[in-house]
Amino acid sequence: MILVLRPGHTQEQFDHLLERLQEMGFTPHVSRGQHRTIVGAIGDENLPQAEEVFNCLPGVEQVLRIQKPFKLASREFHRADTVVEVGTTKIGGGRLALIAGPCAVESFEILDEIAGKVKAAGANLLRGGAFKPRTSPYSFQGLGEKGLKILRDVGTKHGLPVVTEVMDTRQIDLVCQYADMLQIGARNMQNFDLLKEIGQAKKPVLLKRGMSATVKDLLMSAEYILAAGNKNVVLCERGVRSFEDSTRNMLDMASVPNIKGQSHLPIIVDPSHATGRPDLIPSMALAAVAAGADGVHVEVHSCPEKALSDGPQALLPHQYAELMKSLCSVAAAVGKALS
Amino acid sequence: MILVLRPGHTQEQFDHLLERLQEMGFTPHVSRGQHRTIVGAIGDENLPQAEEVFNCLPGVEQVLRIQKPFKLASREFHRADTVVEVGTTKIGGGRLALIAGPCAVESFEILDEIAGKVKAAGANLLRGGAFKPRTSPYSFQGLGEKGLKILRDVGTKHGLPVVTEVMDTRQIDLVCQYADMLQIGARNMQNFDLLKEIGQAKKPVLLKRGMSATVKDLLMSAEYILAAGNKNVVLCERGVRSFEDSTRNMLDMASVPNIKGQSHLPIIVDPSHATGRPDLIPSMALAAVAAGADGVHVEVHSCPEKALSDGPQALLPHQYAELMKSLCSVAAAVGKALS
Amino acid sequence: MILVLRPGHTQEQFDHLLERLQEMGFTPHVSRGQHRTIVGAIGDENLPQAEEVFNCLPGVEQVLRIQKPFKLASREFHRADTVVEVGTTKIGGGRLALIAGPCAVESFEILDEIAGKVKAAGANLLRGGAFKPRTSPYSFQGLGEKGLKILRDVGTKHGLPVVTEVMDTRQIDLVCQYADMLQIGARNMQNFDLLKEIGQAKKPVLLKRGMSATVKDLLMSAEYILAAGNKNVVLCERGVRSFEDSTRNMLDMASVPNIKGQSHLPIIVDPSHATGRPDLIPSMALAAVAAGADGVHVEVHSCPEKALSDGPQALLPHQYAELMKSLCSVAAAVGKALS
Amino acid sequence: MILVLRPGHTQEQFDHLLERLQEMGFTPHVSRGQHRTIVGAIGDENLPQAEEVFNCLPGVEQVLRIQKPFKLASREFHRADTVVEVGTTKIGGGRLALIAGPCAVESFEILDEIAGKVKAAGANLLRGGAFKPRTSPYSFQGLGEKGLKILRDVGTKHGLPVVTEVMDTRQIDLVCQYADMLQIGARNMQNFDLLKEIGQAKKPVLLKRGMSATVKDLLMSAEYILAAGNKNVVLCERGVRSFEDSTRNMLDMASVPNIKGQSHLPIIVDPSHATGRPDLIPSMALAAVAAGADGVHVEVHSCPEKALSDGPQALLPHQYAELMKSLCSVAAAVGKALS
Repeated sequence: MILVLRPGHTQEQFDHLLERLQEMGFTPHVSRGQHRTIVGAIGDENLPQAEEVFNCLPGVEQVLRIQKPFKLASREFHRADTVVEVGTTKIGGGRLALIAGPCAVESFEILDEIAGKVKAAGANLLRGGAFKPRTSPYSFQGLGEKGLKILRDVGTKHGLPVVTEVMDTRQIDLVCQYADMLQIGARNMQNFDLLKEIGQAKKPVLLKRGMSATVKDLLMSAEYILAAGNKNVVLCERGVRSFEDSTRNMLDMASVPNIKGQSHLPIIVDPSHATGRPDLIPSMALAAVAAGADGVHVEVHSCPEKALSDGPQALLPHQYAELMKSLCSVAAAVGKALS
Repeated sequence: MILVLRPGHTQEQFDHLLERLQEMGFTPHVSRGQHRTIVGAIGDENLPQAEEVFNCLPGVEQVLRIQKPFKLASREFHRADTVVEVGTTKIGGGRLALIAGPCAVESFEILDEIAGKVKAAGANLLRGGAFKPRTSPYSFQGLGEKGLKILRDVGTKHGLPVVTEVMDTRQIDLVCQYADMLQIGARNMQNFDLLKEIGQAKKPVLLKRGMSATVKDLLMSAEYILAAGNKNVVLCERGVRSFEDSTRNMLDMASVPNIKGQSHLPIIVDPSHATGRPDLIPSMALAAVAAGADGVHVEVHSCPEKALSDGPQALLPHQYAELMKSLCSVAAAVGKALS
Repeated sequence: MILVLRPGHTQEQFDHLLERLQEMGFTPHVSRGQHRTIVGAIGDENLPQAEEVFNCLPGVEQVLRIQKPFKLASREFHRADTVVEVGTTKIGGGRLALIAGPCAVESFEILDEIAGKVKAAGANLLRGGAFKPRTSPYSFQGLGEKGLKILRDVGTKHGLPVVTEVMDTRQIDLVCQYADMLQIGARNMQNFDLLKEIGQAKKPVLLKRGMSATVKDLLMSAEYILAAGNKNVVLCERGVRSFEDSTRNMLDMASVPNIKGQSHLPIIVDPSHATGRPDLIPSMALAAVAAGADGVHVEVHSCPEKALSDGPQALLPHQYAELMKSLCSVAAAVGKALS
Repeated sequence: MILVLRPGHTQEQFDHLLERLQEMGFTPHVSRGQHRTIVGAIGDENLPQAEEVFNCLPGVEQVLRIQKPFKLASREFHRADTVVEVGTTKIGGGRLALIAGPCAVESFEILDEIAGKVKAAGANLLRGGAFKPRTSPYSFQGLGEKGLKILRDVGTKHGLPVVTEVMDTRQIDLVCQYADMLQIGARNMQNFDLLKEIGQAKKPVLLKRGMSATVKDLLMSAEYILAAGNKNVVLCERGVRSFEDSTRNMLDMASVPNIKGQSHLPIIVDPSHATGRPDLIPSMALAAVAAGADGVHVEVHSCPEKALSDGPQALLPHQYAELMKSLCSVAAAVGKALS
């Protein structure tokens, strides 16, 4: 850590600073410039409170971190790409997650029809919400356990592992009985109790980026899960809030290579939530694979106007099938193969 | 709701649209312009799924809402300012919440010292975290129940009602045993299971704005709590994420009159989290009261460099006392009195 | 245009409203719902001041536009993709602009070396700044006319048309003497006097998106140029300001298909300014082409540490050559060919 | 400046680095930690290109600045508050600029009426645009020189100095003949040629913050003007772009004390452009003065629905007069007096 001192700091402040640094196990290196004195504090930056304490010391103007605040999620800790296995589907290290399905599980018949079509098109993971995070208390909140059972049955019937969202710590055990992968939604990315509990579950996790989360924040949330013992985390870019009002969110495509440089965890892209517009989803899915993403997450519904949630952002099954053909070509162009 | 049709829509799409509108209980009013046909759909816009269904109908280019998506939180539903009582402290309708205290409860001695000083300066609510939402799993996570007990004891000793954060549905009962008011933090503003459960608690709620939440989103989250039966909700502006990197967040001061125009709920401002900088807190507290806020929430610590959480953004007790004097003058200037 | 009236509007306000609408040439269609009265105003939404006047009328709560505010830039006005010719290079309609070169023109020798290498790698347009928009008055401001001459000479030597920035109306004539294409930088996207003057120039224009410009704002700025008579406008996505602090800007990749749906103008992507990080540029260039962009704009320098401007974000010539190979494969996968 | 080296840097890279530092006049201080080697570079950080060169050096992971990039605008360079005089009006050092008037100059009669009323209410500077920056080429673009003459005549008649916008370098001489203060609009905050030329003008300048400008960017733009010789710069916070869609921009109120801490220049607030909503303007004006601003800039029009520009965001003269009464009380509460 580097401490930049204020121009008019006193000798007393300086002595107090060095004392505190040493108390906390840091070795100080002092450099005096024409305008500022800086103190390099050699030691463990991730020591709890260190950065905060330094920021409080009288006479300190600025504290600059050198190390990253996450460890288990970092590429330095684990050089090779992590490959996460969800049933028979592998994600990462050149293998693409092709996640598709409706926003919410609505009935066996509807999900069965969609699952058959996305499987035929090449999807290798089925999604569908049973517990739905809705902005309005008056919107459809999901079928709960009934939805989980339908999802399980349909997944088994079509040979597709299934992923579904967990919104609350009390739902984890239940969801683990039915799902192959647990999703943490954008709005819960910093629900730290949920992260800790999921970290103790035995199922792989799909962690979506929060709408105002930096890449570092996302990796810190992954660190919570990893630190609690669950090593199977797949990250998901799904757009962030911005001033652009013609799309639902702004897809931060650069987060894909940005994360791959810093972390060994797989990162996929969800163009459905990122754009909220079916006309933009296919090209964003292609771009994601070209950018190096480990998969794409696309909402598909056979009758969007009958959907109970987020119909407007779903592709029709035949649109998804067309997309998958183009995706095959782009994946091949960047040296990856769809399974 | 208003539906704008695409220039080249077919007669079949148009007929299907009218049929669906009528099925759902809406009366259509058609206006044909030179460039577009628009259909006014007279009916209940808050009917679950209505907006989403309309957005999915073939031939529809755009769907425009007329009504607000929240009801119980709206000024139209409840004209007069709501006054929330927390113990002996009243918030709203000209009465100011003056919330102060450390970020986290650390020990009886430290909290006791701070409480005595902020009470003397004029604070009427004591804050302190026992369950702490921390970005890093390696940071201090709060004292849990031990912290709640200390908070209760110190509050009682000084005659200050107490407010503390609840992060998970499993903590609600426990926290209700000790606290006078339950805080929902920014990161949990859209933790909908938590909102629903808190809506059934018997304690007033302090609901903080999420970092990427619009004013409408904040009011929708309040609607969750109100709809579940808890009418005592105080909103809190604490800054949102922005590109400005010299403050921790960007304080959206205009949200104060903006919310007051739309909702009867009290709204206070937290300049500590909004700016993250003690040098900016006092002027932002004064500005909040001048803008019409129903109170201010300020972190105070007697020894920031020994604080276990967020020390760098706390005022010292004597700085808080000075601020309270200026606050008195500004409150008087806008026709309010500190109790 | 649709006018939503306030719940308690008076009959007098209503009559005044209808009168004003008719005065301005609009035909009103009134629909009365349970909660609101809405008035459809059939007429020309782009009539100067119409929207502003409606917003001012007493009793009006909200004014909703139906038509787009731009016309000449719209896909409705001109169905087919516009192809812009810059010397022998064609941009749009399946033809890719491959723009490369240093941030600033520094000397004949350096530019000559870079131009030879990017030409060999497949670039078809050479860039280089002679007038540089720098945040600091103390930074290198460009070589001015001397830089323009070097750019012209090097372009001619290597058979590459050249593009360079114009920052001020007084520079237009001079730059037109040397350049094949005029660039308007992000900071000048809403310098309306510059847009009007460039609209009268005889050279094609590369218009970069402003850092806080929506897609609609960008198209409105293009409309200024088109309305002044210059039909040869190429748009450029180069990232917008966001809270993410690990990249220079946030590349809004979805703007590519978003713009293609609304406008006939070519749109290219500049991953150099969008990310500011050489490690992210290649994958973002590939993603741009996969997303349907009509080209990519990449900064290349043979010795970044000697560059007088923006060295840190440049690729080395051999990195650019590698990128171009991958770009060939991705372009082929989406049905496009590099010339 | 501090250079953080990559974990695996080579000895050759390290030697090259030290050599370059010394060539450029910096003295290196090396500190070796467990995870990283850091090099403190003691010297002039504002040396052109220094930061960029360091960022390009092989083996360098991160470059951290210590000093601020602006000098003449900084509080360190000039301790006391600058007081800018515009005719008989003083701005800064406890004196408030009370700028009022219509968005655009429309006719002598309208401006005369407005000027009389705002003067009576206490305004001490009259505003009105003759050259208007409009998003659409089809909107009213201002009366040009005719507007300048009207503004001058009305200002003289009522004894109010006048401020008006300059959009292009070619207009400066003309505007200087008529105006007492030159305004640079938000969209031109980084029009560097305009800044340089205005820096040579003999009139004080009102520099508005750009919609995506950080506080540092704003101060760098002020530095351009100061460096060119014009010391009379007043800054203006007028809101920045954000995801909040119920106000036109987001007023960054904390920028007021934030700028006052770093710079000696006066800073005023424009709640009209910041919010775009007359219902929010008065409380934001009061908050601005409570926050320590050196004045407020408010649009006033006697008949907003007849205004040729931005009518919807103007206060009526009687609303302005009421606001000024409250402003008097708040100013007194923070120790300032309206003249």
